[in-house]
Amino acid sequence: MTTIDLNSDLGESYGRYTLGKDAEIIKLVTSVNVACGFHAGDPDVMAKTVAEANAAGVAVGAHPGYHDLQDFGRRYMALPPAEVQHMITYQVGALQAFLGAGHHLHHVKPHGALYNAAAKDHDLALAICRGIQVVDPTIPIYGLAHSQLIVAAKEVGLPYAQEVFGDRNYLADGSLVPRSQANAVITDPEVIAKRTVAMIQNQAVTAIDGSTVALTTDTVCVHGDNQAALAIVARLVQELQTDHVGLKAF
Amino acid sequence: MTTIDLNSDLGESYGRYTLGKDAEIIKLVTSVNVACGFHAGDPDVMAKTVAEANAAGVAVGAHPGYHDLQDFGRRYMALPPAEVQHMITYQVGALQAFLGAGHHLHHVKPHGALYNAAAKDHDLALAICRGIQVVDPTIPIYGLAHSQLIVAAKEVGLPYAQEVFGDRNYLADGSLVPRSQANAVITDPEVIAKRTVAMIQNQAVTAIDGSTVALTTDTVCVHGDNQAALAIVARLVQELQTDHVGLKAF
Amino acid sequence: MTTIDLNSDLGESYGRYTLGKDAEIIKLVTSVNVACGFHAGDPDVMAKTVAEANAAGVAVGAHPGYHDLQDFGRRYMALPPAEVQHMITYQVGALQAFLGAGHHLHHVKPHGALYNAAAKDHDLALAICRGIQVVDPTIPIYGLAHSQLIVAAKEVGLPYAQEVFGDRNYLADGSLVPRSQANAVITDPEVIAKRTVAMIQNQAVTAIDGSTVALTTDTVCVHGDNQAALAIVARLVQELQTDHVGLKAF
Amino acid sequence: MTTIDLNSDLGESYGRYTLGKDAEIIKLVTSVNVACGFHAGDPDVMAKTVAEANAAGVAVGAHPGYHDLQDFGRRYMALPPAEVQHMITYQVGALQAFLGAGHHLHHVKPHGALYNAAAKDHDLALAICRGIQVVDPTIPIYGLAHSQLIVAAKEVGLPYAQEVFGDRNYLADGSLVPRSQANAVITDPEVIAKRTVAMIQNQAVTAIDGSTVALTTDTVCVHGDNQAALAIVARLVQELQTDHVGLKAF
Repeated sequence: MTTIDLNSDLGESYGRYTLGKDAEIIKLVTSVNVACGFHAGDPDVMAKTVAEANAAGVAVGAHPGYHDLQDFGRRYMALPPAEVQHMITYQVGALQAFLGAGHHLHHVKPHGALYNAAAKDHDLALAICRGIQVVDPTIPIYGLAHSQLIVAAKEVGLPYAQEVFGDRNYLADGSLVPRSQANAVITDPEVIAKRTVAMIQNQAVTAIDGSTVALTTDTVCVHGDNQAALAIVARLVQELQTDHVGLKAF
Repeated sequence: MTTIDLNSDLGESYGRYTLGKDAEIIKLVTSVNVACGFHAGDPDVMAKTVAEANAAGVAVGAHPGYHDLQDFGRRYMALPPAEVQHMITYQVGALQAFLGAGHHLHHVKPHGALYNAAAKDHDLALAICRGIQVVDPTIPIYGLAHSQLIVAAKEVGLPYAQEVFGDRNYLADGSLVPRSQANAVITDPEVIAKRTVAMIQNQAVTAIDGSTVALTTDTVCVHGDNQAALAIVARLVQELQTDHVGLKAF
Repeated sequence: MTTIDLNSDLGESYGRYTLGKDAEIIKLVTSVNVACGFHAGDPDVMAKTVAEANAAGVAVGAHPGYHDLQDFGRRYMALPPAEVQHMITYQVGALQAFLGAGHHLHHVKPHGALYNAAAKDHDLALAICRGIQVVDPTIPIYGLAHSQLIVAAKEVGLPYAQEVFGDRNYLADGSLVPRSQANAVITDPEVIAKRTVAMIQNQAVTAIDGSTVALTTDTVCVHGDNQAALAIVARLVQELQTDHVGLKAF
Repeated sequence: MTTIDLNSDLGESYGRYTLGKDAEIIKLVTSVNVACGFHAGDPDVMAKTVAEANAAGVAVGAHPGYHDLQDFGRRYMALPPAEVQHMITYQVGALQAFLGAGHHLHHVKPHGALYNAAAKDHDLALAICRGIQVVDPTIPIYGLAHSQLIVAAKEVGLPYAQEVFGDRNYLADGSLVPRSQANAVITDPEVIAKRTVAMIQNQAVTAIDGSTVALTTDTVCVHGDNQAALAIVARLVQELQTDHVGLKAF
């Protein structure tokens, strides 16, 4: 039976500030990316989120980002690779600590502007992979399928999972249509569900120009920001069952 | 042969800001307490400091503090115990990550106002011990000898080392004379050296009122802030040799 | 006609994080206390909040707090008075800048743990008042009625408004029943409305022990955190109309 | 008599961390750019620096930068213009507050990566100018001569001073040779002194390709980071006297 990993960001609250439908999305996915206190999350939120993820039986990954709470890690910062490597080691180590002695992170997925920049910047991607390796060379990185993050992981010998987005349109080169363009995001739950299952079954996606692009599909990113996002995931889970695709962490 | 551990704070620089005579003090001590990015240090400084400590062959411990860079962790913050526990887990995990997979911290020593408050506040001391235990229940805590940090460590079953200060005067109850008092600190290298050796040999200290106070002496705190501090440590190391006290990490 | 000022905290969102019913509460009050980026708020939120307050015609005050976003400024920090003075000048100046050249703040109200600590600590209260005076010696401070904040304002010659809480019980010495006690907070809108009007008309409050405590009532603090809080304010405004108490900024 | 303004960055210390030879450089220059707590400086440092600048009789300007203490504001951050505008208003207002009621800043000079990015990015330059205008439309901006900062200031009607660097080589288009190139910086005090005087007298600079580039020279940036930097400034001041160029704030 074909299986797929559904991953979602979790633990993005901070202090008195609450964000995300964590309690709902955690029931629908197989792995979670937990914010590490730099772009979102704080030590209390991290402790609570890891406990909830463990209780729900989902695989726990770290979700490190730029040190920019005000912009939620969504703005590019021109950091040198060495600095990126160290901030990854720091955040991944901090989150792993909450798992308890002898327990290891399931994966690491870079967040926001860091994820996007590293998808295209080889040196940045290498720095992220090396930052993870220092903590534990057996932790897989989740990176945009066929991007520099995957190239870099192969280069340094870090395990990896290729990630796809069922709610995003793709260019013919396998990269995402930038959010600045009108057709970047797909919002119809029905379309997203069918399209995602096709990506899993075909290991390919139909790009915006109609061409078919090969795309290794190890894990699918889904969102739990609001009620509409949850409805999309619920519809996708239903479609996966219909099409006999099993849910299983990478 | 009697041996003693000399520990010192290290890695207190931040970004472009440099602090401490790390290169000099590291040659004189047996264990170091590395700042974890909350009251001092940053991921780059942490990576560099761990590498230097490993190269020098000294034991590496974490030195977590309040999240207050502007005050260098020296001001009390009224955090609830749960929040303290989580910020300890976070900082200890972050530093341990730089040691590399399979390597463990030698110890954890709380910093500044956190250390001082926990010496007297049982709940705070328990929170710190529990924060360490989540990461690894076998990492010893360095705490003020006979203080609540030691009481709490015993209570939760965390290993511990009792710490003394050769350059501080003690009250008859075994606590330190507060820095607000004129005679809190001893500055004569000769006096400090003789006094410290006596503390190690007698496992006791002569308090400010002339009384003898029993004091378990597992580790001695020394400083590398400036040239005068280094001279004090150099004189102490010489005196330890003269008196056949060996240098060995706890 | 007797008039009263109703003040409320505003602009407590931060980056992607939203907090408070600003759009609703701004229609009910006469003056607002805008967070200054240390315990809540950021420059974008401050610009937006000042614009909204100006559009609504309410008086704009600064609401400086401890530099502790994670705890929302609600934890005591043991800062020396000079440091408090400077952080007040900084925050008050930053907020005033958004009013535009030639415009002045209507008032300053310290936030959370800083407000509570300064109500009892004369040196801290003096430091706050002096921090305001550096920016503009004519800006009034809002402080707990009859507290050290008022004593200090009188001492240094800073204008002041004495603040009361209609939803808090008072001790016989005019201080608030601490929140750690069960009867600290009153939640019945009806009780709060009647009680507040009585405080305004009598310039006195009935303490928890039944005694009558004289209490200068220049401004009343109300909240816009949620729907229940808004209902309390709406009921109070209705009662003020019934009893012919006018609404007017201090 | 021809006069020139020499400006230097000041107040770049933070908490326990000390940086720069403030006491020495302040005696040599006519205007200072004071860090505002985002990339360097804190409220205590700002209060002390403004007091020292006033005592020395030099003109006080604000030196706002990106909110990135760890990188000292030297890394580009991809902030949207509105966010830049608000962070400028915030920082400029915060520093002006320390001057005291009724006193105004002499100028504003953006720092580091923000200065460099705005020299080439028109929208960013406009955002900075507008951020200053909100505080006070009569405060001049110091910007790289003939750069987008000057273009933007003219466009919005903000006063400006064109800044040159005597210790930097220029390209034929009037921009600075990037620091990534070997010949970016000139270090010989003799060369710098002669070259700077020529720039002031000719209102032009000889570019790296030998061409003469017209360059309005309203203010010259000098540094006080270390002893070598101070020696450069001292030699320049001497040369200015020899050549009868007076020292006077813009």
